[in-house]
Amino acid sequence: MAGRNVLIVYAHQSPASFNAAVRDVAVEVLEQQGCRVVVSDLYAMNFRASATSQDIKGELKNPEHFHYGDETMFAWQEGRLSDDITQEHRKVEEAELIIFQFPMYWFSVPAILKGWLDRVLTQGFAFSLEKMYNNGIFKHKKAMLSFSTGAPESMFLPDGINGDINVTLWPLQNGVLHFCGFQVLAPQIFWAPTFSPPQVREAMLGAWRARLGGLWEETPLTFAPSEYFDLSFQGGFRLRSEVKEERSEHPYGITTGHHLGKPLPPNNQTKATPPNDKNQPKH
Amino acid sequence: MAGRNVLIVYAHQSPASFNAAVRDVAVEVLEQQGCRVVVSDLYAMNFRASATSQDIKGELKNPEHFHYGDETMFAWQEGRLSDDITQEHRKVEEAELIIFQFPMYWFSVPAILKGWLDRVLTQGFAFSLEKMYNNGIFKHKKAMLSFSTGAPESMFLPDGINGDINVTLWPLQNGVLHFCGFQVLAPQIFWAPTFSPPQVREAMLGAWRARLGGLWEETPLTFAPSEYFDLSFQGGFRLRSEVKEERSEHPYGITTGHHLGKPLPPNNQTKATPPNDKNQPKH
Repeated sequence: MAGRNVLIVYAHQSPASFNAAVRDVAVEVLEQQGCRVVVSDLYAMNFRASATSQDIKGELKNPEHFHYGDETMFAWQEGRLSDDITQEHRKVEEAELIIFQFPMYWFSVPAILKGWLDRVLTQGFAFSLEKMYNNGIFKHKKAMLSFSTGAPESMFLPDGINGDINVTLWPLQNGVLHFCGFQVLAPQIFWAPTFSPPQVREAMLGAWRARLGGLWEETPLTFAPSEYFDLSFQGGFRLRSEVKEERSEHPYGITTGHHLGKPLPPNNQTKATPPNDKNQPKH
Repeated sequence: MAGRNVLIVYAHQSPASFNAAVRDVAVEVLEQQGCRVVVSDLYAMNFRASATSQDIKGELKNPEHFHYGDETMFAWQEGRLSDDITQEHRKVEEAELIIFQFPMYWFSVPAILKGWLDRVLTQGFAFSLEKMYNNGIFKHKKAMLSFSTGAPESMFLPDGINGDINVTLWPLQNGVLHFCGFQVLAPQIFWAPTFSPPQVREAMLGAWRARLGGLWEETPLTFAPSEYFDLSFQGGFRLRSEVKEERSEHPYGITTGHHLGKPLPPNNQTKATPPNDKNQPKH
């Protein structure tokens, strides 16, 4: 693990927060392992969240109709992205692992962190139509969500009032991280630390510390391999018929999102499936 | 419909965009119906996305450990929120319907719109622990997502490479809108307008225009009624055993998130179920 680079993208306003303590444990343990850890402290950096033409230096290709995705793709190709984005690109390029550390806001990341995703994961740099999912640009990197909730775990069970946490995590983990190719490690979820007594919060940090010790050996979460799909516009990027047939006997869908009208594979977005598990899609 | 107030929270940078055209059609048709339409044009307003202490006037309750949710709840109670939030609160209070108009960014709303959700849906104003879901504060209001995608519809089918759009929409529609009590109208999804020829885009706008004509009579999407759950910390906010039993014979889960280990009810987050449908939970 020596020499490995880790980027922590951190989104909490207060150095006295539980999220700050979680970040500090990660920095400490990973540095003890010999890793080089860089933290992007988004609020402290006053990181801009909104995707605007300020992100592009020089002239726009189409000033009459500003299209953020196109303009930033061109600007990336030509080295004309704003300095704050370019700096984050360098950190991402150097990182072997990215940890996103945040309090869950409205069933997702806080806006400042959504801004990091919107602005830093530039087309061309982070994905292209040819390079996505497990053919993705960052397929040799790992990423994980580490977050605190306001609600206790029971509220996020399939029969809890907020519904299954696996469904809530799908757009972030499949749609953002795995889309860019990242091997997604199981999320580290700190359930309702604000409403927990100090000894419970301490135990949460202890469990995190222990997990970090074996993080590099973890099996990532299971997503649907891109080979399962007909990756053409005529084919509609849909599951190949032979795969559909092969899966027809299976009691569960492939992933939370690729459920195929069957029950969701349990904990698909929260727990890694051991490699010898029969639910594991073949890679 | 005369005299009804509608708020459009609009998040696109360019007045020449398809999203702008969609907004214009909504304003035109709703005003023809006699509605009063207010547009919050977030980029034009330079709307702040990040949740910071700038949102609170006067002294913080706990400057040593800034907790955004608590501080803004106190500030709301005492009339000390920043003027931009207070202005949006007034618009929300007056609106009978809120339409969120945006291009989908990374399987969700753009950061500037996430910022609107994070900052405007203040605890106390938009929800409380006692008032959530169908006991929610905005239960007499309607809300809907209206958005464009980069991907064609086939990619967002349960066997498409992006997975089921119903799963992707769950955190926004259940976790944000329905959580605050809103009756959520079926989303208006414009599939890949950028890659569609002009006549297809025109047809999309025509279909939107037609839908707006009957919008006030639409049945909202189906969510799990709060009465299904034991709303106590001892009960863990989980489904009541008698409801679980009653549902045991049912082929589908209750909603996308409350799947109970069964197949997801088809199109739960994209299509309203007619009131006489047997899949419809009793309200």
